[in-house]
Amino acid sequence: MQLNAGCELQFDAKETTPLILMLRPRSGDGQWIMKEEYDITPAVTVTEFTDMYGNLCQRVIAPEGPFSINFSATVQTADDIDVAPGAPYTPIEELPDELLHYTLPSRYCQSDMQGNLAADITNGALPGYDQVEAIRSWIHTNIKYQYGTSNASTSAVDTAQSRVGVCRDYTHLGISLCRSLNIPARMVVGYLYKLDPMDMHAWFEAYVGGRWYTFDATQDKPRGNRITVAYGRDAADVAFTTQFGNMDLNTMRVWVDAVDEAEAEKKAVEPATVPAEAGSTNQTTTAA
Amino acid sequence: MQLNAGCELQFDAKETTPLILMLRPRSGDGQWIMKEEYDITPAVTVTEFTDMYGNLCQRVIAPEGPFSINFSATVQTADDIDVAPGAPYTPIEELPDELLHYTLPSRYCQSDMQGNLAADITNGALPGYDQVEAIRSWIHTNIKYQYGTSNASTSAVDTAQSRVGVCRDYTHLGISLCRSLNIPARMVVGYLYKLDPMDMHAWFEAYVGGRWYTFDATQDKPRGNRITVAYGRDAADVAFTTQFGNMDLNTMRVWVDAVDEAEAEKKAVEPATVPAEAGSTNQTTTAA
Amino acid sequence: MQLNAGCELQFDAKETTPLILMLRPRSGDGQWIMKEEYDITPAVTVTEFTDMYGNLCQRVIAPEGPFSINFSATVQTADDIDVAPGAPYTPIEELPDELLHYTLPSRYCQSDMQGNLAADITNGALPGYDQVEAIRSWIHTNIKYQYGTSNASTSAVDTAQSRVGVCRDYTHLGISLCRSLNIPARMVVGYLYKLDPMDMHAWFEAYVGGRWYTFDATQDKPRGNRITVAYGRDAADVAFTTQFGNMDLNTMRVWVDAVDEAEAEKKAVEPATVPAEAGSTNQTTTAA
Amino acid sequence: MQLNAGCELQFDAKETTPLILMLRPRSGDGQWIMKEEYDITPAVTVTEFTDMYGNLCQRVIAPEGPFSINFSATVQTADDIDVAPGAPYTPIEELPDELLHYTLPSRYCQSDMQGNLAADITNGALPGYDQVEAIRSWIHTNIKYQYGTSNASTSAVDTAQSRVGVCRDYTHLGISLCRSLNIPARMVVGYLYKLDPMDMHAWFEAYVGGRWYTFDATQDKPRGNRITVAYGRDAADVAFTTQFGNMDLNTMRVWVDAVDEAEAEKKAVEPATVPAEAGSTNQTTTAA
Repeated sequence: MQLNAGCELQFDAKETTPLILMLRPRSGDGQWIMKEEYDITPAVTVTEFTDMYGNLCQRVIAPEGPFSINFSATVQTADDIDVAPGAPYTPIEELPDELLHYTLPSRYCQSDMQGNLAADITNGALPGYDQVEAIRSWIHTNIKYQYGTSNASTSAVDTAQSRVGVCRDYTHLGISLCRSLNIPARMVVGYLYKLDPMDMHAWFEAYVGGRWYTFDATQDKPRGNRITVAYGRDAADVAFTTQFGNMDLNTMRVWVDAVDEAEAEKKAVEPATVPAEAGSTNQTTTAA
Repeated sequence: MQLNAGCELQFDAKETTPLILMLRPRSGDGQWIMKEEYDITPAVTVTEFTDMYGNLCQRVIAPEGPFSINFSATVQTADDIDVAPGAPYTPIEELPDELLHYTLPSRYCQSDMQGNLAADITNGALPGYDQVEAIRSWIHTNIKYQYGTSNASTSAVDTAQSRVGVCRDYTHLGISLCRSLNIPARMVVGYLYKLDPMDMHAWFEAYVGGRWYTFDATQDKPRGNRITVAYGRDAADVAFTTQFGNMDLNTMRVWVDAVDEAEAEKKAVEPATVPAEAGSTNQTTTAA
Repeated sequence: MQLNAGCELQFDAKETTPLILMLRPRSGDGQWIMKEEYDITPAVTVTEFTDMYGNLCQRVIAPEGPFSINFSATVQTADDIDVAPGAPYTPIEELPDELLHYTLPSRYCQSDMQGNLAADITNGALPGYDQVEAIRSWIHTNIKYQYGTSNASTSAVDTAQSRVGVCRDYTHLGISLCRSLNIPARMVVGYLYKLDPMDMHAWFEAYVGGRWYTFDATQDKPRGNRITVAYGRDAADVAFTTQFGNMDLNTMRVWVDAVDEAEAEKKAVEPATVPAEAGSTNQTTTAA
Repeated sequence: MQLNAGCELQFDAKETTPLILMLRPRSGDGQWIMKEEYDITPAVTVTEFTDMYGNLCQRVIAPEGPFSINFSATVQTADDIDVAPGAPYTPIEELPDELLHYTLPSRYCQSDMQGNLAADITNGALPGYDQVEAIRSWIHTNIKYQYGTSNASTSAVDTAQSRVGVCRDYTHLGISLCRSLNIPARMVVGYLYKLDPMDMHAWFEAYVGGRWYTFDATQDKPRGNRITVAYGRDAADVAFTTQFGNMDLNTMRVWVDAVDEAEAEKKAVEPATVPAEAGSTNQTTTAA
């Protein structure tokens, strides 16, 4: 399905503020960017680089005052995601070199501390896809979805304890549990058609049966029509915006429309409010 | 200046033909892609990868029959290019590791064979920028610009002999002569505002005074408002299209308009006709 | 100074166990590997790859039974490390693209949670080198060095609380505090001449004044003659050995001798005993 | 088989001369470096980097006067190389992205000009491995091996014409003919046990049946016990030494001994004498 997707971010910079943006999806891996538009107001110099995961990142310096970003794209996406019950665990010795680091713990996915929980959840499941699906299903059932219950420091260990969170927390917990079973897992951020409520989204992929599969613990069944914006170990790697200064995000709007529903209204989304700790000026806008 | 630039390619595939396209410019390095549109008809699956030079490459398989590609972008470009008479030669021992390979000969730039010519042309010039400018100026004066005089096998050695060619040949000769003086040089392909006649274009960059500078032997003075599509050692690395099958390019149109001249007519360009050698099905569309 | 350095690891594998080793230092960045020897007994197939940080990693599969690794190298090292009081903070907008990720939190360095502590410690220090030195000095003074007080899950937040740890913990805390001030910091593991007691070692580098500087909170003054084996965000990236199976490390010996002191006795080091959580078979040997 | 292999190069530098060395083999891809020693006299600072093909390259500056390099290694190698008659041609659309550039022409392998010759030679052969073997066999039969008949500018087109050359020329012709059939091919330089006369060696790999296979047109049958030092498109990428100054290579000795034949005499090899063109100071030592 062809999707029109995008977001609009309106900031108020209290001071000159460097920003790193990760808003431009790449073609490849099942999605083709047919059209895109990237407006920044006021006009500033933008440079772009590719990070160690292959994500396109934009660097800008926001002057003091209002600062807005408007990104939109028309993307050809797959209507379905592959599911593969029974796909076997890929032994460590068969993993490609470049995926080994996805078995390691990371900031929000302390897999070294969640082995017992993972063993409990996947008890009886066939090693591989079925273990990951058991994890995904357990999270979907046992974690309550609720805005405002977590913040930029909330980790998988926290969520396993609190049993509440948003898509970012669901994703971290899924990743952490997979890795504690030595299954490579990575975070994906992007857009999902008909996500309700509409927002930037996050989910995860696990490597079993010799390839990556998509898992989304926020949904009750497998759903396609996703646009990947970035991959990483966890949210530390894939913030949509990282700002190094005092800057408020006033409005964030996100939309994903089927191309033949072009008249669909753009839906407003409230930005996640992340209270910054004093002394730390590095804030991020992440998927919720 | 903001430019609307793009190209339209119409092929007729005699058989199912894999293609590699290099048509999508990247943001960064002095250009910001504000808007782009990439249409392929009939619709086919497209995958994208980044090559060893950082260029975005698209892979498609054209079915038998008509096949067209239409790419357009709105790009913020610099109005001027930097010039730096007197900028010194950068000694080999001070070159960044990743640039060393740009001192080596390549398919169309046999710098190992052109040391004497380079020494003659740059005789008396200060080592560095002034040598490169002497080379650029010599090519501009001594090589006659003429369509149809060269083909996909024409190299810098050939052009130094024939004294005739198109932008691709000017560029190869400039690169080869620089490298024979141990000055790193690379090919750039892309768009140039007000190029006459309008076409895909090629020029080169040389590394002196600790950075890359732009040189264009087809022009009589330095000109900005360029859009870089790809970098490489020579034309072997940066063909706009590389086709692995029997496929005719029937029409190629290229345009570069200032955004405030939006009504400017799109100008048609005749595709370079490259006679394929029997037995070789690998054809390329390159800058002329 | 030329150093003979190396380590010997003796394992007992309870089952066939895949291992990733990070034991081979690379030449460059101030060290030149003149000679090296890498023995694995029993002989097994070894493959090597370079990870995303440029570290050389070896993959092996240990058969059930005794398994030993012996690595030694003769390395030319620098006698001193650079110190630069007053070197200024490098603003985010001037950081090279590829270093930006070193400002982000990671598994053991939750910089997003330590901004207040960093602000307290560096209160009054000039932004840049002096801040990092204030952090290093504070850790040296306030954290008690004691084996056996931390384990593979201990993070910078834990250490700030417990005020006790080993070189790994000192390093994580230093990195985390730097990053909370938006100063890029990375972990280094390797060898240090005359480290007492001798062992594999860890320290950190911070990027100020436009380059990396070495800091070691375990030492009371700057010391050179270091051999870097690997760089990473934190210990998750740079374990000397990562084992994916049930395998005991029985003995670890580490030595660093000046070449003209070749008769120096090899000193035995007790391996860090890391109690593995049930359900997790992924263990690592890290610097202590 | 375990091999002791190495080389000794003795230069006389007429002036301070930067050098790039490519002498250190990497572990992986069927070879394991168990021991190595790399001596440079007089002692100079050496830095090392990894080039775009993954080769380890060393940079040094030779002072005026005698300059010698002695590299030796003990390497576990495979006794046989795989042969696979009938392995099919891998269609372009199935090639991994990162191999596509190995189908393109390069400095010494003008595949765009050798399609007819390749078609003649492989007439009747099954597409894939059998075509490559037909090429290899044709070169072995039709090209006369003779030192001193080619130089640093000799290309595959030259060799197809002259029908004479050394291992470097055999290799270039093999690569060029493969690429003209859209079969990826790359140059390998390194050591071959029992090569007669002993010298640094060059051969090629072609990608058919979904993987790389080794081909050596200088030998009358497939032979293993090879040590790869570097991979590249052609000799421009993989010179053992590239010198940017006036410097004579006086002696080159190369040895490859089975470990249990340790007493085997080191055999002296005359360095290839490459007359430098005036104006070009960039000389290389390549496989012969």
